[in-house]
Amino acid sequence: MAPLTPRLVVPIDVKKKPWEQKVHLHNRWHPDIPPVADVTEGELFRVEMVDWTGGRVSDDNSADDIKFLDLTITHYLSGPFRVIDAEGIPASPGDLLAVEICNLGPLPGDEWGYTAIFERENGGGFLTDHFPSARKAIWYFEGIYAYSPQIPGVRFPGLTHPGIVGTAPSAELLNIWNERERQLTETGHESLKLCEVLHQRPLANLPTPENCLLGKVQEGTAEWQKIANEAARTIPGRENGGNCDIKNLSRGSKVYLPVFVDGANLSTGDMHFSQGDGEVSFCGAIEMSGFLELKCEIIRGGMKEYLTPVGPTPLHVNPIFEIGPVEPRFSEWLVFEGISVDESGKQHFLDASVAYKRAILNAIEYLSRFGYSKEQVYLLLSCCPCEGRISGIVDAPNAVATLAIPTSIFDQDIRPKRLGHGPKLRRVPDVLRCTYDGHLPVTQDQSYARAP
Amino acid sequence: MAPLTPRLVVPIDVKKKPWEQKVHLHNRWHPDIPPVADVTEGELFRVEMVDWTGGRVSDDNSADDIKFLDLTITHYLSGPFRVIDAEGIPASPGDLLAVEICNLGPLPGDEWGYTAIFERENGGGFLTDHFPSARKAIWYFEGIYAYSPQIPGVRFPGLTHPGIVGTAPSAELLNIWNERERQLTETGHESLKLCEVLHQRPLANLPTPENCLLGKVQEGTAEWQKIANEAARTIPGRENGGNCDIKNLSRGSKVYLPVFVDGANLSTGDMHFSQGDGEVSFCGAIEMSGFLELKCEIIRGGMKEYLTPVGPTPLHVNPIFEIGPVEPRFSEWLVFEGISVDESGKQHFLDASVAYKRAILNAIEYLSRFGYSKEQVYLLLSCCPCEGRISGIVDAPNAVATLAIPTSIFDQDIRPKRLGHGPKLRRVPDVLRCTYDGHLPVTQDQSYARAP
Amino acid sequence: MAPLTPRLVVPIDVKKKPWEQKVHLHNRWHPDIPPVADVTEGELFRVEMVDWTGGRVSDDNSADDIKFLDLTITHYLSGPFRVIDAEGIPASPGDLLAVEICNLGPLPGDEWGYTAIFERENGGGFLTDHFPSARKAIWYFEGIYAYSPQIPGVRFPGLTHPGIVGTAPSAELLNIWNERERQLTETGHESLKLCEVLHQRPLANLPTPENCLLGKVQEGTAEWQKIANEAARTIPGRENGGNCDIKNLSRGSKVYLPVFVDGANLSTGDMHFSQGDGEVSFCGAIEMSGFLELKCEIIRGGMKEYLTPVGPTPLHVNPIFEIGPVEPRFSEWLVFEGISVDESGKQHFLDASVAYKRAILNAIEYLSRFGYSKEQVYLLLSCCPCEGRISGIVDAPNAVATLAIPTSIFDQDIRPKRLGHGPKLRRVPDVLRCTYDGHLPVTQDQSYARAP
Amino acid sequence: MAPLTPRLVVPIDVKKKPWEQKVHLHNRWHPDIPPVADVTEGELFRVEMVDWTGGRVSDDNSADDIKFLDLTITHYLSGPFRVIDAEGIPASPGDLLAVEICNLGPLPGDEWGYTAIFERENGGGFLTDHFPSARKAIWYFEGIYAYSPQIPGVRFPGLTHPGIVGTAPSAELLNIWNERERQLTETGHESLKLCEVLHQRPLANLPTPENCLLGKVQEGTAEWQKIANEAARTIPGRENGGNCDIKNLSRGSKVYLPVFVDGANLSTGDMHFSQGDGEVSFCGAIEMSGFLELKCEIIRGGMKEYLTPVGPTPLHVNPIFEIGPVEPRFSEWLVFEGISVDESGKQHFLDASVAYKRAILNAIEYLSRFGYSKEQVYLLLSCCPCEGRISGIVDAPNAVATLAIPTSIFDQDIRPKRLGHGPKLRRVPDVLRCTYDGHLPVTQDQSYARAP
Repeated sequence: MAPLTPRLVVPIDVKKKPWEQKVHLHNRWHPDIPPVADVTEGELFRVEMVDWTGGRVSDDNSADDIKFLDLTITHYLSGPFRVIDAEGIPASPGDLLAVEICNLGPLPGDEWGYTAIFERENGGGFLTDHFPSARKAIWYFEGIYAYSPQIPGVRFPGLTHPGIVGTAPSAELLNIWNERERQLTETGHESLKLCEVLHQRPLANLPTPENCLLGKVQEGTAEWQKIANEAARTIPGRENGGNCDIKNLSRGSKVYLPVFVDGANLSTGDMHFSQGDGEVSFCGAIEMSGFLELKCEIIRGGMKEYLTPVGPTPLHVNPIFEIGPVEPRFSEWLVFEGISVDESGKQHFLDASVAYKRAILNAIEYLSRFGYSKEQVYLLLSCCPCEGRISGIVDAPNAVATLAIPTSIFDQDIRPKRLGHGPKLRRVPDVLRCTYDGHLPVTQDQSYARAP
Repeated sequence: MAPLTPRLVVPIDVKKKPWEQKVHLHNRWHPDIPPVADVTEGELFRVEMVDWTGGRVSDDNSADDIKFLDLTITHYLSGPFRVIDAEGIPASPGDLLAVEICNLGPLPGDEWGYTAIFERENGGGFLTDHFPSARKAIWYFEGIYAYSPQIPGVRFPGLTHPGIVGTAPSAELLNIWNERERQLTETGHESLKLCEVLHQRPLANLPTPENCLLGKVQEGTAEWQKIANEAARTIPGRENGGNCDIKNLSRGSKVYLPVFVDGANLSTGDMHFSQGDGEVSFCGAIEMSGFLELKCEIIRGGMKEYLTPVGPTPLHVNPIFEIGPVEPRFSEWLVFEGISVDESGKQHFLDASVAYKRAILNAIEYLSRFGYSKEQVYLLLSCCPCEGRISGIVDAPNAVATLAIPTSIFDQDIRPKRLGHGPKLRRVPDVLRCTYDGHLPVTQDQSYARAP
Repeated sequence: MAPLTPRLVVPIDVKKKPWEQKVHLHNRWHPDIPPVADVTEGELFRVEMVDWTGGRVSDDNSADDIKFLDLTITHYLSGPFRVIDAEGIPASPGDLLAVEICNLGPLPGDEWGYTAIFERENGGGFLTDHFPSARKAIWYFEGIYAYSPQIPGVRFPGLTHPGIVGTAPSAELLNIWNERERQLTETGHESLKLCEVLHQRPLANLPTPENCLLGKVQEGTAEWQKIANEAARTIPGRENGGNCDIKNLSRGSKVYLPVFVDGANLSTGDMHFSQGDGEVSFCGAIEMSGFLELKCEIIRGGMKEYLTPVGPTPLHVNPIFEIGPVEPRFSEWLVFEGISVDESGKQHFLDASVAYKRAILNAIEYLSRFGYSKEQVYLLLSCCPCEGRISGIVDAPNAVATLAIPTSIFDQDIRPKRLGHGPKLRRVPDVLRCTYDGHLPVTQDQSYARAP
Repeated sequence: MAPLTPRLVVPIDVKKKPWEQKVHLHNRWHPDIPPVADVTEGELFRVEMVDWTGGRVSDDNSADDIKFLDLTITHYLSGPFRVIDAEGIPASPGDLLAVEICNLGPLPGDEWGYTAIFERENGGGFLTDHFPSARKAIWYFEGIYAYSPQIPGVRFPGLTHPGIVGTAPSAELLNIWNERERQLTETGHESLKLCEVLHQRPLANLPTPENCLLGKVQEGTAEWQKIANEAARTIPGRENGGNCDIKNLSRGSKVYLPVFVDGANLSTGDMHFSQGDGEVSFCGAIEMSGFLELKCEIIRGGMKEYLTPVGPTPLHVNPIFEIGPVEPRFSEWLVFEGISVDESGKQHFLDASVAYKRAILNAIEYLSRFGYSKEQVYLLLSCCPCEGRISGIVDAPNAVATLAIPTSIFDQDIRPKRLGHGPKLRRVPDVLRCTYDGHLPVTQDQSYARAP
């Protein structure tokens, strides 16, 4: 007899608000957020999820929803799930939790997504000094393919994945997070070079009760208040996995997560129809609601067996994973290179972030020769299946980073050619816009004056 | 009638010293190093090259040659080649030079290579604070495959490529390089964070006449003296391509190089049988002598048509390239993740270099559970076809970097398994060693005391 | 605004019989079977379908349903769909209909399938002389993966596809089919060599009113009677596409079908979770119910522009197609070879069917050394993503065919190894059985007496 | 210390005749052809080889050399090699010989090849009834790429492989071959259907002393006479491997060959720069001289352990192999389908050879719409890396075969498109021709009268 269809442990009704869903969602990491369901080793179960904003971004003609989005609400997660073995014994701290992503996709009836640039004063992105204004593009899905009315001439198969999959931190780990991120906000501006380059972006997002959603824990109670003041924000990836935004965590892949609390307390959310390495515009994936079909295995003692900590405590570990077997296949790639010399011509020392920034700027400039606006390309490189590599990290003083773009996603040949065979320029729709009220200057690349 | 076999423009005799070769080599970038040959658009020509050290590293049982290697001698390049079209008109500044790598490989009779860790006081590497001593592993080739007596249980097909391919800089570009790198050496230690992490590594390598080899320019002449004092060292990749160490620049790939001087003055060298993304141990590829078969095309005006500068001058551009169609095929990858929290537990802000460092440390720790020494894994990850990705660069404060390792290069299953099915430990030969006379402390990862 | 979710043009309720479905199904090819819906160029629409038998095979412990299955009922198809352009003008004979398979999969709630051997007296299969008895294996799905309790140690991602996609034949084409297949049944046994090899298999399946289902045409009417007597059976692939059983017709692929009647009258059915090249056991795919999401484009005049007939009329053409971008990725293949010498040692002349038969027999024998019964392997090679190639078809007298099996579908290493490192034998469950009442001898491969 | 460069066991001087080479070649299979060298398990050795005709085809402007080529001279093989283990004990009958192809390529200085159609009266080919006249195309190599002046607009990377690799037959096996092939020539024309389709092609090529070359055995001696009268011709693949023409037997692949005589007596020859599945024009690969670098392993008793015979004796086995990891990578394929209905419209029963023939004819017709002559396409499909599949072999009466062509080998987009976006016709050079003196009619496909 066939096993049952995947058991639905979190159903989502996209017409309802995140806090109105039948099974409670949450948007923070904390050991005391209670599990919403038990799942058994080997069992196939289905988790549905809202998009990361819980439906605050619309399929309309304006980027205003992006401009004013309150980042304290993110990300709405489904879970936690308490993982038990066949005997009912929960996963324990020190175990490794292997989570297989057997399937995933958009929610039926909600087959669309969006990619956006946040305003520099409200979140920003990797190139926020070049693109300070909020912008948005809508993507529609045709099965495996996505296309956008705002970025014509491009269509590609999705490498769909959850941006977030993680286990709950222990109190000790949570404390480590809060402490180190607090220190960063206090001293980072002085000591860290990249801050200057990235201007106004928040250095970290510390705990705040604002817009906090804690699953079954009722708002206003003392318990809620305590958790809300301690619970980690979901924006960065950390030791528990979390928002790692690894674009290859797709169908058939497997994540090995460290277990920090009894039951592991697995949560997931932030589905992406597709994302490029780096997710450069920040709201850069094709963001959507969706579903996952998961299967868990508990490797008893596996955290000790396999994950040597790199850091001051045994908790300083990271997940590992295996890539699945059904990724989109591309043969031909055009590759852009960046070195760690910034837009002002200043030499940095083996800084891969600067090198990657320059690789992306190079790609944006190049593709804008083919009839696209720079903002169209910025959004496209955030969400298409492009690969960002650290190619060289030792040849002082230049780190070399590369960005490889699959050429077949375009309906024109984007390779360099002899004059007369070059880009087919065309007028096209552009990304959705809104006004920019910010007051910081746009980074002036001196070359821009010369651009066509 | 068949065209001639690729025309041999630079023959190499590996029994001779670099300065004794029939066609003069050079180890600096300068517009006044004279071409050694003309090559015509469309012509297939063969370039042979010494290994990057010109034969100073031996297939023996000691790492002493690595320990004492003088880095001022590197890299011996073959060229420059003046590229002309069918009418004899040379490539001009503003053109784009498309160089197709039609074939490449080791030199017949010299089918071996080496991978090494430089001593911290003499070059260092990406993990120099963890591995301060000089070490070496020898690799032997069996056609497409490499194996090392010092790193048993591993064999893989090479993704062979030249570490260096570039055009000569103009005087103006050379001046930009020298100026910005000089500034870095003067102010970098104060202003740049990564310096602290990487301890003693040289920030940049400024021009020096020491060990300078300038092709046909005769040593001791006034011309030689002038060039030697100005000519850029070859260690970093820069606007002209150069030592970009992009591991996918293999058979069938195509590089589009900016042209800065009449004739383009193309040079190449530093063959790698294989390299991992990042080439982390610095002398991290499987270094060897070798040959290239190349074909050039001049895209007139292509630099202006395609390469928008990102920086203060029109010279602030980077090459682009297309990946070739015959790379080794791997299906199964084990992926290690790192976040921008360093070994001391300190939080960095979106620093991809720190995240990549932690991903590599995680991988080293993990694989050392399978019977390898950490130094074996460090060398292996430097040279095997592993992929280093910038997965997330926007989720403040953590950059997420990943390192994907093809599982089939090992003769055991390296995936995590339930207890009792875990690693097959074994005693094995280790990498070649020498004494360490340095005086700086090894970075103490607090977890090390607990390791088995 | 987002387009609507794919329009559902054929819903299926798997609890109902094929003839009870809300939208009429059909199981014959005929120009007069009326369309069940119009679909417009560019529109994304969803078609659901029963499994090929319409639910006659059960998830139980017996192969009796296979043994007694009446083949006149097959295949239940969804459609026909009349394809029109944006102006409402239907596709016309001479056009080419491009059908993109944007997505597909099992029907939610019905995530299982089966693979079977038909009894030699009731359908048989490619190796019916070796395997005369009915057998069955059940497959369960975990998202992209399938596994079978009857064939342990194997799990693989599906390359899911519709076995049947085709346009309606014109009366002229239908007549050609009926005539040539009738001639075959009358003269084939004398003139055709392969008949002897394949013993009792039906040479062709001529029209019969038995179990005929003709969509909206009401049974018992004169119209029904006429169509039922003429309508072609669905078993073979033909000029209209039909049951071509091409395993790569999966997500993202595109079929270019010739149009023979107004509106094209597209039908589809016979979903396969996975199939090996050749589908050798006949009921050899993982058969299931399922859904397709399709998009059509009409290439006006494209049949004349692109499809030169090979045969006596302009109708002697075949579809062409493009493979989609998200097939499962396998790197390591073990390949079995067969030559056109049959099991008795007799030499055939460049007969690819005989060579492929021997390649499959070789693979069955080999894999049975690893703890499997021959019937388990026969079923496995029918449904797993193995590739069957015509490697050599000119080196008289031996055609060479090859069968490549991805090694990663097994949980043991199936490559040949030195003694002591060979197959891990094990006792395992076997395929589901029933009695065999046939009276023809099993082909005696003389080697069998010697097998262990 | 590095092992020596691969030991050269057979050097070839392409300026000399096959019988003048320093190490004797042979062009027959016989147990008594004496080994030319011993090779040791684990040793890397290099074998050079002439092209299959021993230099009888020239890089000139005529197909006359093809027209008059005497097929009794083929194929000149390098070997046999006696394989011994580290203790000097030779491989024995019943062992399995694993041969790894570590590397291969054209001979330096001889980087060109040819593809040809044999005249119907002198060898013919798979489509000899359509293309009765001798034709030739020359291919030049640029590293991994090949291009032909006679087939413009096409360039592709080679999937280079030896057409022939095999072990010597025992006397018993040789006798089986000679007997079954003799029977075929005597009775084939009456009993075998395909003969009619393939008209005049020789059914088999029986032993003949004519042009026989037997290595060290001196012509004219009694021993020579005996062997020459018995020795099998090399044209077909057989139980010993031989001319299997499997296009994927390239770099890094491994063949497991049965051992029939002491020492295994391994021979190899017939290098192909590239070949399509089926090698349809017979002299259909890009034929060339070349070299192999090989490594052998003896699996003692492995023939019995792994190769169950399928046939009347324990000798009725076939090799198996593993595909190597560095094949050219293609993503986009256009696929042509054929069914087992022949050009006259006659229905055949599950005949994969007929279906494949029709698939190829369909592809030829299609591509000839893009400005190519049919003979250009016939040659191209013989030698480019196209894949021939047996897609369906059970859906009576139609076998379905498919031919998949990588689209990126063309410099134009060959996919079907709306009118106005269709093929770019062009006048181009054509294949090299000669007169046809044959007297048999060309098969008249009735559709041809209508073709443009």
